[in-house]
Amino acid sequence: MEIILAKRAGFCFGVKRATQMAFEAANKGGDTFTLGPIIHSPQVVQKLEEMGVKVRQDLSGLHDGTIIIRSHGVASEELEEAIRRELEVVDATCPFVKKAQEHVKSLSQAGYDVVVVGDADHPEVQGIVSYATGKVFVIGNGEEASRLPRMGKIGVVAQTTQSFETLKNVVLECLQRGNEIRVFNTICDATAVRQEEAKELAKQVDCMIVIGGYNSANTKRLAEVCAELLPRTYHLETAEQLNAAWFENVDKVGVTAGASTPKWLIDEVMGKIGEINRDKNP
Amino acid sequence: MEIILAKRAGFCFGVKRATQMAFEAANKGGDTFTLGPIIHSPQVVQKLEEMGVKVRQDLSGLHDGTIIIRSHGVASEELEEAIRRELEVVDATCPFVKKAQEHVKSLSQAGYDVVVVGDADHPEVQGIVSYATGKVFVIGNGEEASRLPRMGKIGVVAQTTQSFETLKNVVLECLQRGNEIRVFNTICDATAVRQEEAKELAKQVDCMIVIGGYNSANTKRLAEVCAELLPRTYHLETAEQLNAAWFENVDKVGVTAGASTPKWLIDEVMGKIGEINRDKNP
Repeated sequence: MEIILAKRAGFCFGVKRATQMAFEAANKGGDTFTLGPIIHSPQVVQKLEEMGVKVRQDLSGLHDGTIIIRSHGVASEELEEAIRRELEVVDATCPFVKKAQEHVKSLSQAGYDVVVVGDADHPEVQGIVSYATGKVFVIGNGEEASRLPRMGKIGVVAQTTQSFETLKNVVLECLQRGNEIRVFNTICDATAVRQEEAKELAKQVDCMIVIGGYNSANTKRLAEVCAELLPRTYHLETAEQLNAAWFENVDKVGVTAGASTPKWLIDEVMGKIGEINRDKNP
Repeated sequence: MEIILAKRAGFCFGVKRATQMAFEAANKGGDTFTLGPIIHSPQVVQKLEEMGVKVRQDLSGLHDGTIIIRSHGVASEELEEAIRRELEVVDATCPFVKKAQEHVKSLSQAGYDVVVVGDADHPEVQGIVSYATGKVFVIGNGEEASRLPRMGKIGVVAQTTQSFETLKNVVLECLQRGNEIRVFNTICDATAVRQEEAKELAKQVDCMIVIGGYNSANTKRLAEVCAELLPRTYHLETAEQLNAAWFENVDKVGVTAGASTPKWLIDEVMGKIGEINRDKNP
């Protein structure tokens, strides 16, 4: 059985950077916290917990120690509150997310009504939106955008993992609603690149393994696009979940992983599939 | 025979303003010139000529008198040259065109590469483009836009008479070519409104009369959209061109006029059709 790992499986730039910053902070010791999970990987969060890094939902009761801001960023008021409490802040917000936050802030200050193209329930979007000082709308698709009111100057910013197609549809709706539309294309291509590679791979193999947190939107989407092409697609978090029965009559297996999946989890899965393969052909 | 005149036939805001300014200047007397025809109506231009207003293609040899800038505007260098020559300048540039010129200037100065959505041969576009101090592209449709290079910040401005559809297609192409796209929708709805009204009318009548200069792009387009719905569509400049034979077996006739067609030309045509009607039913 041939085992093919997608070239760009796993950590994107922002997640890699955030994870390194978190482990560095953990190594320094002292009371260390993250606001929400540092990234959408329960296994990474658990490793950090074993090193003493606790996950907090908010800052209540915290007056001392180090607070790590996760890759998705947090609401501006929360960051300000952390500074006011004189906590040591390790800001691991992805620089691309930071840019989206800054654009929303400057657009708002310049008098634009702001449209954030994204999922209103996602913490990244909730963080980005908090930087608006004027009117702000979260829009998930063109259909939602068609219900936007008539505005003056409209500023558009996207959640970094949005599809370009959705951004396009929202921009077209905005064009009909304002005299000036200023679009910052803050989409990061990491998501699209992983999806394109995974699709190519799914076409060539008999079985796809997608590794990543069940709470990771980009991993779930990765598994979805593979499953559309190849029903024998399995989404798992760890090597223990692999099942030898999945590989019966499989000549080629493809492996990919979401942007928040660490290399060691991928390595473990690759190793375990190798073992299963050796058991198949002793 | 019923004769129906479209509600919004004739002069748009900018043309009406420019024509008034030109006649006022003509009434003042003295050497008075326009740079190119004041509007795309040979009959208005002729009337002004009879009052002593001469049409010049450029400023060469002019050192005295009044120069009227036409509704489409002129190149920035030409306006500066007129001021340098201490000519009296009557700037009859349509305020909506002026706005497009100003946006191009400020976008250029702010470091944007500028895309002007319009017809490169049209004097309005040539004037607008001249306000760019950096890179500028004139793009007539989405297909042309697909050949644009990758840019940094892209500013988009439209010729005031462009269709919204074309603007949309160009914006979509630009979205794929820059990180920031700033669109000023400078399309004036006068053109679209006249076309929509004319289409509605063409559906109800047996014959359409479209009045306006043969050199007027918006009048030609008006005649085209009517002819698509009603082959018995006639584009004429003056009442003398009307032909009684056109109205045989006609119960209802529709009349419209381009944005540069003066009221007195429309009145003459309406009067002449009335006469033809009376001759038909003595």
